[in-house]
Amino acid sequence: MMFDKIALIGIGLIGSSISHAVRRKGLAREIAISTRRADTLEEARALGLGTQYTLDAAEAVKGADLVVLAAPVGAYEAIARTIAPHLAPGTIVTDVGSVKRHVLSAVGPHLPEGVHFVPGHPMAGTEHSGPGAGFASLFANRWTILTPEPGTDPKAIETTAAFWRALGADVELMDADHHDLVVAITSHVPHLIAYNIVGTADDLETVTKSEVIKFSAGGFRDFTRIAASDPVMWRDVFLTNREAVLEMLGRFLEDLSTLQRAVRVGDGEALETLFTRTRAIRRSIIDAGQETDAPDFGRAHEDDGTSR
Amino acid sequence: MMFDKIALIGIGLIGSSISHAVRRKGLAREIAISTRRADTLEEARALGLGTQYTLDAAEAVKGADLVVLAAPVGAYEAIARTIAPHLAPGTIVTDVGSVKRHVLSAVGPHLPEGVHFVPGHPMAGTEHSGPGAGFASLFANRWTILTPEPGTDPKAIETTAAFWRALGADVELMDADHHDLVVAITSHVPHLIAYNIVGTADDLETVTKSEVIKFSAGGFRDFTRIAASDPVMWRDVFLTNREAVLEMLGRFLEDLSTLQRAVRVGDGEALETLFTRTRAIRRSIIDAGQETDAPDFGRAHEDDGTSR
Repeated sequence: MMFDKIALIGIGLIGSSISHAVRRKGLAREIAISTRRADTLEEARALGLGTQYTLDAAEAVKGADLVVLAAPVGAYEAIARTIAPHLAPGTIVTDVGSVKRHVLSAVGPHLPEGVHFVPGHPMAGTEHSGPGAGFASLFANRWTILTPEPGTDPKAIETTAAFWRALGADVELMDADHHDLVVAITSHVPHLIAYNIVGTADDLETVTKSEVIKFSAGGFRDFTRIAASDPVMWRDVFLTNREAVLEMLGRFLEDLSTLQRAVRVGDGEALETLFTRTRAIRRSIIDAGQETDAPDFGRAHEDDGTSR
Repeated sequence: MMFDKIALIGIGLIGSSISHAVRRKGLAREIAISTRRADTLEEARALGLGTQYTLDAAEAVKGADLVVLAAPVGAYEAIARTIAPHLAPGTIVTDVGSVKRHVLSAVGPHLPEGVHFVPGHPMAGTEHSGPGAGFASLFANRWTILTPEPGTDPKAIETTAAFWRALGADVELMDADHHDLVVAITSHVPHLIAYNIVGTADDLETVTKSEVIKFSAGGFRDFTRIAASDPVMWRDVFLTNREAVLEMLGRFLEDLSTLQRAVRVGDGEALETLFTRTRAIRRSIIDAGQETDAPDFGRAHEDDGTSR
């Protein structure tokens, strides 16, 4: 047993996946689950995700030696204020939020002396959300980035890293600001433009919604997966990583202007050069073990009817 | 047997998939394969995709009652000029290009009287290309759009539709200009912005390429699949569907400005409203049978190591 009691504050896709993995690996004697909504808590209970269920985060963290914040980051500050008086010295507090500078300033100052704060971000997920969406292997072979402030207890950092590695993750330490820049381009701006184009398609008058849906297999449907991600979680990401998102979005828009011009003037060479270069990036991601090399993500292709 | 001899001009992902499906269903006695490059032709021969192999498209179409153009659309006009004198009256010429107004004007005028031109566009594909990329069920349950000019022989249209249905596709007739607008939003602009963001990420100085690759699981890697599509095919798409692409890109950019402002001013309500609305579109695409409802496209998730 790595921990006596883990408190999961929030039990959506990530929280429930942690519960599955912790139980499968036997990493904790007890798992306390706390969430804001009674119906979510009942869903977690029905799924048997914990050993204690409470709507009161303060109650959940009592006696916990590891507390994992797994709620939308907009709720972190209030949670930190609520749990702070009930945290025992030596407790490690970590989180799973997609932004890290904001989290350090929203949570850190509220935690009492002797409690170790080691913020984390597992780079893993699906478009599904809620307590029923989790599965034990979500973190396997995915990176989790830890962004503790300088001066954080090295043993607490190592314990947190060991926890994530026990869940199957690879762990990397990074400065919080740099983390926020990295995820702005690898995650936040991709989500923003996916949400945007799905919204654009939904609003057209010249092309009907039924046509968008029927003919989505040409590429659009890939974007809808990302644009189906949890709305509140993503609202909070954009509210709390504004500067990095706007910087990366600015770069994206500059490049898009160049590309738009290439289309307008019919510069086939420029188009082909870019389209050839981008192919190599995917190859690198597959070679790095971060993506499947099956065509079409390995989407199941229906049989073509010969056996019907 | 539906046809005596089918000539496939071009033998990439789509051409080779047609060959697999035609042979599996027994739709033709002979399949002639013609392509521009000798090494591609040899690859097709090694895969046994046809009954006749030639670098001369004119040779391939001799005696064919169905000719399928499956090369990049930029090559169509030259192909049409080459094959025209060798087409027998009554032959149906169809194609698989992603743009249709350009194809009508690039091919139509060169075909002799009595030859029927029924342009087509199967809305199906993967990011892989070449003769080895095809598979028989590619078109199953996917839409193929036919865009014949008014006045085209109804029997030729019906035969072409029956051919695509025999390959497993659902068939819809559409005006060529409207087709080009529909695919601009469901396919061409999604490809353009996917190519663009992958290029942007590749160019950054503040975030290294190795970081982009390692941490791509947060959304970016989905875009790399689309940005790994065939460069020449996509160059030709943007060179030949310029107006519709620029119109839809303009709409996308207007909406993105609004979203950018919402991020800048911290308008959480606007963000959450959009992010909630887009979720419903994916649900509709899944309900329409055009997408898997498995999380993460059904990407294989590794086991988490307990059984290692």
